[in-house]
Amino acid sequence: MTMMFGAAAALVAKHKPTLEKAAAAAQARGYWSLYPEHLKAYGETAREDGEAAFRAHLGKPFALDVPGAAGTVGDEAGAFGVELGITYPKPDIDAVLAAAGAALPAWRRASPDERAAVCVEILERLNRRTPELTFAVMHTTGQAFMMAFQAGGPHAQDRGLEAVTYGWMAQTQVPAGDVTWEKPQGKNPPLVMKKRWHVSPRGVAVVIGCATFPTWNGYPGLFASLVTGNPVVVKPHPQAVLPLAISVAVAREVLAEAGFDPNLVILAADSAAEPIARDLCTRPQVKIIDFTGSTAFGDWLEDNCRQAQVYTEKAGVNFVVIDSTDDFKGMVRNMAFTLSLYSGQMCTTTQNIFIPKDGIDTEDGRKSFDEVAQALAAGVDKFLSDPARAVEVLGAVQNPATAARVDEARGLGTVLLDSRSVDHPYLPGARVRTPLMLAVDKAAAETYCRECFGPVSFLIACDDTADCLATARRTAMEHGAITAGLYSTRPEVVEAAVEACLDAQVALSVNLTGGVFVNQTAAFSDFHATGGNPAANASLTDLAFVANRFRFVGVRMPG
Amino acid sequence: MTMMFGAAAALVAKHKPTLEKAAAAAQARGYWSLYPEHLKAYGETAREDGEAAFRAHLGKPFALDVPGAAGTVGDEAGAFGVELGITYPKPDIDAVLAAAGAALPAWRRASPDERAAVCVEILERLNRRTPELTFAVMHTTGQAFMMAFQAGGPHAQDRGLEAVTYGWMAQTQVPAGDVTWEKPQGKNPPLVMKKRWHVSPRGVAVVIGCATFPTWNGYPGLFASLVTGNPVVVKPHPQAVLPLAISVAVAREVLAEAGFDPNLVILAADSAAEPIARDLCTRPQVKIIDFTGSTAFGDWLEDNCRQAQVYTEKAGVNFVVIDSTDDFKGMVRNMAFTLSLYSGQMCTTTQNIFIPKDGIDTEDGRKSFDEVAQALAAGVDKFLSDPARAVEVLGAVQNPATAARVDEARGLGTVLLDSRSVDHPYLPGARVRTPLMLAVDKAAAETYCRECFGPVSFLIACDDTADCLATARRTAMEHGAITAGLYSTRPEVVEAAVEACLDAQVALSVNLTGGVFVNQTAAFSDFHATGGNPAANASLTDLAFVANRFRFVGVRMPG
Repeated sequence: MTMMFGAAAALVAKHKPTLEKAAAAAQARGYWSLYPEHLKAYGETAREDGEAAFRAHLGKPFALDVPGAAGTVGDEAGAFGVELGITYPKPDIDAVLAAAGAALPAWRRASPDERAAVCVEILERLNRRTPELTFAVMHTTGQAFMMAFQAGGPHAQDRGLEAVTYGWMAQTQVPAGDVTWEKPQGKNPPLVMKKRWHVSPRGVAVVIGCATFPTWNGYPGLFASLVTGNPVVVKPHPQAVLPLAISVAVAREVLAEAGFDPNLVILAADSAAEPIARDLCTRPQVKIIDFTGSTAFGDWLEDNCRQAQVYTEKAGVNFVVIDSTDDFKGMVRNMAFTLSLYSGQMCTTTQNIFIPKDGIDTEDGRKSFDEVAQALAAGVDKFLSDPARAVEVLGAVQNPATAARVDEARGLGTVLLDSRSVDHPYLPGARVRTPLMLAVDKAAAETYCRECFGPVSFLIACDDTADCLATARRTAMEHGAITAGLYSTRPEVVEAAVEACLDAQVALSVNLTGGVFVNQTAAFSDFHATGGNPAANASLTDLAFVANRFRFVGVRMPG
Repeated sequence: MTMMFGAAAALVAKHKPTLEKAAAAAQARGYWSLYPEHLKAYGETAREDGEAAFRAHLGKPFALDVPGAAGTVGDEAGAFGVELGITYPKPDIDAVLAAAGAALPAWRRASPDERAAVCVEILERLNRRTPELTFAVMHTTGQAFMMAFQAGGPHAQDRGLEAVTYGWMAQTQVPAGDVTWEKPQGKNPPLVMKKRWHVSPRGVAVVIGCATFPTWNGYPGLFASLVTGNPVVVKPHPQAVLPLAISVAVAREVLAEAGFDPNLVILAADSAAEPIARDLCTRPQVKIIDFTGSTAFGDWLEDNCRQAQVYTEKAGVNFVVIDSTDDFKGMVRNMAFTLSLYSGQMCTTTQNIFIPKDGIDTEDGRKSFDEVAQALAAGVDKFLSDPARAVEVLGAVQNPATAARVDEARGLGTVLLDSRSVDHPYLPGARVRTPLMLAVDKAAAETYCRECFGPVSFLIACDDTADCLATARRTAMEHGAITAGLYSTRPEVVEAAVEACLDAQVALSVNLTGGVFVNQTAAFSDFHATGGNPAANASLTDLAFVANRFRFVGVRMPG
């Protein structure tokens, strides 16, 4: 016990200044980031070291304690054609939940400061493993190297820290120690009570990872639950296990060193052939679930796991409305990047581009719908004309079904830009596709009102700007959206777009023509999703994301 | 528009210091109250004035604008035998929801400071109406005068202010105005964005009032939703309309004076014969529901109103465990008051009293289970021996079904103290019942594992203290509890009880022998319910209660 106290106290001393800075940053919402996003911060040979560490995992069992494990699972195909061949312990759900539950009381007894400090230490160790995580993310998700490095490493770690920070703030909304309550009684002595509020976590939490952003989408739920006292079972997507397996291993190592039960974070890997998520998530011990993935399974979790708080990020139909611009080239360049990045496999990628049928005003005068559409298509085509550069933006298509969906989508409208395969210069097995852009009729709502996940976008002619906004608003309200964009030089249109986005509860980016893109958000500043439309029922990360993962239990006695 | 801005701005100037004090108090959680709980603060003739104002309502239509109303409803019986005979406009649900929805955008556009200041002004006006509200609460609920005054007036207003305060804090977790985000780009110029976070309320909120605490249980949801930008439809219990009708009228008056649409708060009264709650609450426009009442209807709302955030307070089986005491008389006196107050019709009243079958240690030596049970029964009996005093503690039984339940409960165990009717000295029609206390076998779980609402308590002999705690813990986890009590002189038992209550997520009061009672909580200090067991899915009031009633919508553009 002395040792445990010593280790946890040392981590509090080490990390509390960071937590205080992070809390101030979260409240200020300007630019703030703890983990460097330039490669050289990770050493001169970061790339080579990371690749070597990644390759050392290949074809071997991943060494990790999983309570009650018997046998192995693992069939990660590798989006760049590098088959991973890694096996992971096959979990026994009863044993996993029992071990997680047994770890809870001592973790609950730790202070919010201690739990937060342990979490920040885990993130610091994850940050050190960034080069290795980069290649794990890259090869499982198909993200190109630089994106896998940034989004899978420091940006994911920043989002994790953001969740720790909000969880810490939510717990420290009450005083940490005893409080004296003294109520005057006129001439009589006051009533005096000694009171204390204990944080009681909800129970075992489950994080269901996704195949495209296992760390970036996984860390917020993992750390939000852990910092608020809940043991966490991490169930990765069968095609993207390695990044979360490494993350779980790091978390267990830190927890044990700090004197806590490593079973506070457990890996529960499965395979597509034998999925375990339904069985796991419906267990009565599971009180919190974080999920990123399909609307079908997200809805299923919401409907069937009523014993748990369920936080879901699902599909949506992100949009951009183009009303007018004074930087047409900048707009085209900016949108070309957005549509190309990770071949449209971001939950924030624009799908629907609404344009008035009579065209738009630009700095070069009026441009017709067709001119705008052609310019956007040409912009994407030109941006991806050099294959060596193209693959570093596009990455690979994670799932063969996504590639098939692109092929099928050709028939959905008039092809403005066809999708093509690109040969990867140094990873010959990579499945690389360029964006497909289609003009579709506004009447074809069944086409653009569902998410066509992957590098597919629809350009839709509307009656006028008001009709663009009304249609976009309705699609977002009914089918969800995580991002919205607007190009307009007219203040009254900007105001109308803000109102539409307040109705649809979707974040809005206006007139992006430079180095900020509608599909990118910054931790500690932009919220990711609002939680107010069908694309997600929660936001990363605000107080609502953390405040209901634990409950306060007050204990009072005469003082 | 200038006028509106002026009125709202003036309210901000007037009330922001109060909000700041309230926020500091909520975080400190010591004693703090804004609204005086001594009668004389409301004038020398407060009681007479209040009664006169109440009686002026009787037998008349209550004047209130309700959109689309046609006809009237109203059949409040009056728990003290004073039939109210007041009618209220009969709402048209379509028109009510349309009017509430139309009021939303301008209210959303107001700042969090403005909304909070308007809410504090409403509470200030309600506070001035305390004498009238006292009699409205008294005669609808059956609370005795002093309780109706305190719990229905200042304590309810404090809880309302607490909800306003937390809602204001949750909204001000982000900066109010524009933020400049500036990301360094090495040697290149930084990326600069101007960002703003708008509060977007979820939509129309419904508050479903209860018959026993229409204001105390109604205000938190009402003000939590209103302060976060949501229009609120107030659907009172058909037997306790008047207190909420007055409250709605006051809110509408203040809203209109401040330049906002009074339809931000609408009364939707109904009758037992033609209830409207199911129809109202399942409408797609309804995005938030606050409910206090039966488990059956609370569960129905949770299951059937999936389009809404549903906050419920339902039934539970509150308990006290008696292990030992060094103030046996104080314990008996304290528990006698708890069991008697408002004849057990508080959601916080103790129902189950677990005592080791071999008895307990006291300052006078060992006392057997029977001695403890008899002493508690005698304590209650003695406390209520003077009818004039008894009725001022017991009040009246609100619902005839509760009185019938007491009669039926006699057969559930061995009668330790029988319930009797008491003649009210000056309200001859009052339905007054003293507590029924029964010894029941630990094996009779079906008896004590459901709430027997009203003045009925069960004394249950367990094997020992550990068994008492284990049984109490299990009943609270499975059937819910809002309050827990413990009497023990042994620190290790207190520690075990704290652990049990952390598991069951129920607030614990230890060794209450003086003027603080297990069934009473203080706003800004004690949380009411934890939201972590079947008795309630939310707590009054913490950040979790408010943070998900709105969403942040970020708008960013190049800076």
